[in-house]
Amino acid sequence: MSDHQQAVQYLKSHREQQLSDLNDFLCIPSISALSEHRQDVRLAAEWLVARLIQAGFQNAHLDETPGNPVVVASGPHAPYRPTVLIYGHYDVQPVDPMAQWTHPPFEPTVIDEVLYARGSSDDKGQVYMQLAAAESWLKTTGDTPVNLKFLLEGEEEIGSIHLNEYIQNHQDELAADFAVISDTPMFAAGVPAICYGLRGLAALEITVRGPFQDLHSGVFGGAVMNPAHALATLIASLHTPDGTVAVSGFYDGVQELTLKERQAFASLPFDSEAFRQSTGSPTLFGEPGYSPLEQVWTRPTIEVNGMWSGFIGEGRKTIVPSTAHAKITCRLVPHQDPEHVLTEVCTHLKTHCPPGVTLEIERGEGDPGTVTPLNHPSVTAAEDAIEEIYGTKAAYIRMGGSIPVVVTFQEILKMPTLLLGFALPDENFHAPNEHFHLENFFKGAQTIALLWDYLGSRDPLEFASTTR
Amino acid sequence: MSDHQQAVQYLKSHREQQLSDLNDFLCIPSISALSEHRQDVRLAAEWLVARLIQAGFQNAHLDETPGNPVVVASGPHAPYRPTVLIYGHYDVQPVDPMAQWTHPPFEPTVIDEVLYARGSSDDKGQVYMQLAAAESWLKTTGDTPVNLKFLLEGEEEIGSIHLNEYIQNHQDELAADFAVISDTPMFAAGVPAICYGLRGLAALEITVRGPFQDLHSGVFGGAVMNPAHALATLIASLHTPDGTVAVSGFYDGVQELTLKERQAFASLPFDSEAFRQSTGSPTLFGEPGYSPLEQVWTRPTIEVNGMWSGFIGEGRKTIVPSTAHAKITCRLVPHQDPEHVLTEVCTHLKTHCPPGVTLEIERGEGDPGTVTPLNHPSVTAAEDAIEEIYGTKAAYIRMGGSIPVVVTFQEILKMPTLLLGFALPDENFHAPNEHFHLENFFKGAQTIALLWDYLGSRDPLEFASTTR
Repeated sequence: MSDHQQAVQYLKSHREQQLSDLNDFLCIPSISALSEHRQDVRLAAEWLVARLIQAGFQNAHLDETPGNPVVVASGPHAPYRPTVLIYGHYDVQPVDPMAQWTHPPFEPTVIDEVLYARGSSDDKGQVYMQLAAAESWLKTTGDTPVNLKFLLEGEEEIGSIHLNEYIQNHQDELAADFAVISDTPMFAAGVPAICYGLRGLAALEITVRGPFQDLHSGVFGGAVMNPAHALATLIASLHTPDGTVAVSGFYDGVQELTLKERQAFASLPFDSEAFRQSTGSPTLFGEPGYSPLEQVWTRPTIEVNGMWSGFIGEGRKTIVPSTAHAKITCRLVPHQDPEHVLTEVCTHLKTHCPPGVTLEIERGEGDPGTVTPLNHPSVTAAEDAIEEIYGTKAAYIRMGGSIPVVVTFQEILKMPTLLLGFALPDENFHAPNEHFHLENFFKGAQTIALLWDYLGSRDPLEFASTTR
Repeated sequence: MSDHQQAVQYLKSHREQQLSDLNDFLCIPSISALSEHRQDVRLAAEWLVARLIQAGFQNAHLDETPGNPVVVASGPHAPYRPTVLIYGHYDVQPVDPMAQWTHPPFEPTVIDEVLYARGSSDDKGQVYMQLAAAESWLKTTGDTPVNLKFLLEGEEEIGSIHLNEYIQNHQDELAADFAVISDTPMFAAGVPAICYGLRGLAALEITVRGPFQDLHSGVFGGAVMNPAHALATLIASLHTPDGTVAVSGFYDGVQELTLKERQAFASLPFDSEAFRQSTGSPTLFGEPGYSPLEQVWTRPTIEVNGMWSGFIGEGRKTIVPSTAHAKITCRLVPHQDPEHVLTEVCTHLKTHCPPGVTLEIERGEGDPGTVTPLNHPSVTAAEDAIEEIYGTKAAYIRMGGSIPVVVTFQEILKMPTLLLGFALPDENFHAPNEHFHLENFFKGAQTIALLWDYLGSRDPLEFASTTR
């Protein structure tokens, strides 16, 4: 039996233990958003430290932050093999509305091979999967095929407020060839996926000012520009009628998808009509020439997230509003420069502002989109591991949202991230009755154990030379 | 001494009495908006009845409504002379912010020939002016040159909620050749004015619906129409960039101003820059080809009074909003049909609604603009009376706002209204330190006394035959 066969066999033969352990972990109500659970959050961190030590990570410990502690650990280190930083989080979302839970959120329950509990899929179950995979190597071989480091935080559900500073101050300890995160879903049941791209974000807020106070629309209406009209004109100017962004320079740097990527997306079991129904919109609408998946995964957008002007209460108030406001965010794709995009949007707005009002722009911050090179060794190794364990080809997917820590890893630690999650998209993250399919819990751990083996034979120098 | 000289002389020789009377009237805190002043409102009505009887209107009395009573009275009636309905109101606005009053609002104070008190100009002072003018005739001749009826309400400041029903039910008692209202300002100090046109109003509220709930802008942004964008597109489509309303059929029926009217407006002492400064807008902006006065007095508008969509709190929420809303009112000018305008606006909105959303329109009600024919005997007589008393030509002005009772008089009682007010535009109606210049209080009463004389010689048949 090869080493990796031993590791996988270890995982298969310790399922009872793994479920029992995870049960203990899930019983801790580590809700970071609620101050009354502050001690529970710490308890979960301490539980992880103990469990990592038991798995063979002797140096596992808590590192304090101004908020909840970070759990860090590193396993056996050897030169000439890749180093991997495993990121996850041990805090969970609040549970309300409590009445909608069919089982108590912190009393894990298995029904038909599905584990119900808050944190089961987001992210305690997936963190435990990573821990189990590492343990399977340490218990069978006394080593791991790659150098493994754990970085597990307790504030992910409240915006990772202290993580950036922690990473900034611990660059040497956290240095690795790449990061892996198991906190995302597969594409669908039976479709394990490697997510290789995320969109970034750039934000701004605009205020259009006209009269210094709301004016009587009878006395003044017709002789002054209405700021609500001016704002509408500005917002309408951001897109052409077909949905393309009309801001000059907005698409600078955006790379067209390769034929291979488009074919890969097109081959995914994606039902446009079901997707539309899940939104409730009467029809889908987006940039022409791209499929809905391409639109949300790979094309940049400008969205008004909120706007307001004048009287918005019940009834009627015949005024010319004094001001009009909009909150705007752009979803960015890899190779777009957030600062450049913000500059171009600001220029567009200033250029298109109608007369009779003044425009104020509060320029926010931007995070770039991220992409993991498809020829990165972690990607090809993950593909092989998935095929071996699931007996099916991995889907190559991207995601339209942002995962800020991926940007942090890219910008501060200068490393790409492999997003290798085993949850399913409908497992109720953040909602009542969160759950996790045990099949993916077990297969996920095995896939990861195999991934380390496949990567252990690769030259670390390969990791720096890949590009997309 | 002619009859009218006697009447004017009576007014001049009873100034002390008039001021003392008005003082009593103003001391009553008849604030209709505040239920704790309900008895005060009734007290003011009873005071008026007593005062009208004292003036010679023996039949003056209260008529109950479901709210505050209406004061009605009619004087000596003779055939073959015009009948005039005098409308006014005896309720007043609340007084807060109290701290800003330099004198107690219900302790009338005269400083430098200016009377400070809540209600001094809006409208008790002007109601008393009408009463004094009528009394001057009754006390000197035992008759009035025209048939006079008073209709004085106690709910004007809370939307005249029971007046329409009252008028509907008392059409015979209120029948007249025209109505006169002294509840508006002169154009400026030293510029007495006849207001011969008001704008009307048509209202609607629109809702643009996209997704059935706010969507994650990362997961869905780019593949669905954002309702805020759709609403902005709709609002932007309502005007051309130069400020003209772009709705087909919107201007149907609108009459161009005559050269005489334009010249009259142009000759008014109007300072565009001062007007702009009073708004705070960086520049004036309106339909090209019209002066600011023409724009607000004589041109119809579409104004967004309020709009809202998505997240409008502090901070950021990266969503595609589910809905977007706008409250819209049109200011209408005479000869525009409100129903036609609403239909055209609704058609425009439906035609211009972008794909991917649904549009809901809540069609509100419409009131037409009103205009008093410039050759109406009341207008020419008022011009003569003003010139006689003030020694200056009356300004012919219009107003951009609406006075609902004028529409009621037009639609139910089928009569035009002469707006003959003697307040000044900056006398703080509805604000702290409301005041009324005594010069205009006295001259106003004299002008009205004279007006009745000039009208008394006109054939009632003339009143029906005038048109604009």
